[in-house]
Amino acid sequence: MYRLYGMSGSGNCYKPRLLLTQLHIPFAWVEKDTRAGETRTPAYLAMNANGKVPLLEITPGQYLAESNAMLCYLAEDTPYLPQDRWQRAQVMQWLFFEQYSHEPYIAVARFIMKYLPSDHVRWLELPHLRERGHQALAVMEQHLAQHMFFVGEHYTIADIALYAYTHVADEGGFDLSRYAAVRCWLDKVRSQSGCVDIT
Amino acid sequence: MYRLYGMSGSGNCYKPRLLLTQLHIPFAWVEKDTRAGETRTPAYLAMNANGKVPLLEITPGQYLAESNAMLCYLAEDTPYLPQDRWQRAQVMQWLFFEQYSHEPYIAVARFIMKYLPSDHVRWLELPHLRERGHQALAVMEQHLAQHMFFVGEHYTIADIALYAYTHVADEGGFDLSRYAAVRCWLDKVRSQSGCVDIT
Repeated sequence: MYRLYGMSGSGNCYKPRLLLTQLHIPFAWVEKDTRAGETRTPAYLAMNANGKVPLLEITPGQYLAESNAMLCYLAEDTPYLPQDRWQRAQVMQWLFFEQYSHEPYIAVARFIMKYLPSDHVRWLELPHLRERGHQALAVMEQHLAQHMFFVGEHYTIADIALYAYTHVADEGGFDLSRYAAVRCWLDKVRSQSGCVDIT
Repeated sequence: MYRLYGMSGSGNCYKPRLLLTQLHIPFAWVEKDTRAGETRTPAYLAMNANGKVPLLEITPGQYLAESNAMLCYLAEDTPYLPQDRWQRAQVMQWLFFEQYSHEPYIAVARFIMKYLPSDHVRWLELPHLRERGHQALAVMEQHLAQHMFFVGEHYTIADIALYAYTHVADEGGFDLSRYAAVRCWLDKVRSQSGCVDIT
């Protein structure tokens, strides 16, 4: 059985948890608190030298890091990852967009507001993070104004990856009221069979 | 014929250019200077709403963004992207590692030192970027001390993605002398058939 090392509340850890649930694949969740240093211990670094969660244990000693790599691995040969070459390419495009242009702003703003006291120096990063986060949301809005989902008009791992932090973007101070298509898409993802909460 | 919109000197743009060259696939290079705003024009944003390079035109009107998504697309059914499920998962892991834990530090430090005057406020970011960049290099060193290449003991798109900015990391002030395995791997990549320079 898969073991998924993750931290509750983390959007990146939520992604493989959501997909495993939707695929009805049993797994054991192993809680790791990054803020308590639990991903920097010698034992953990032996499993993942990069010291991050989530981490998927496929078999004992066989570990896969990077949430979006897990989505690709787990979704292979399922409807969540299309077989069509162009659709697959678009899924990959959105997965990399999420990790490079979305998560570093929307997830980080949420982390700062949710976990750090309001007099912490990192609160000074928020204006910059908001500006870049809104750029990512605007790209999503433009796409979703024309499409039901991110790729191929059906639910894929591209939606899972982008849903993870977008549906809790308000916790990072992002007001989604101006993004009608994004909000409509959030409702569509939320209504998918097997959709679970992030907590 | 493919058209590749890119900026000379950019490691992200270099990745698909290197792979296309190694696959002997003809393509037209279209130079776009991001610093001159050429990726923020209405015409460019109509092709890529995220306003970034590289951008691959597959057919007129069909565009793929994100350098690592291009690598996956172009390498499908070639030895550069293994068929084996576990090896593919590891390729994906390293591609996401590159965009999340490597490029934002090593490429950005290089950008600041190479393109911004030394009295620019962004030079103040360098100590933080160096610290995180060295963490990424240490992860690579640990892996490469045991392996010829990143995945499956042969050259794949994981190597291309990580080679792009690692082989010019010195331009971001990274001294690679302490990373013997990384330097050995750089030589192995450099000696691959069809390897071209970044410029």
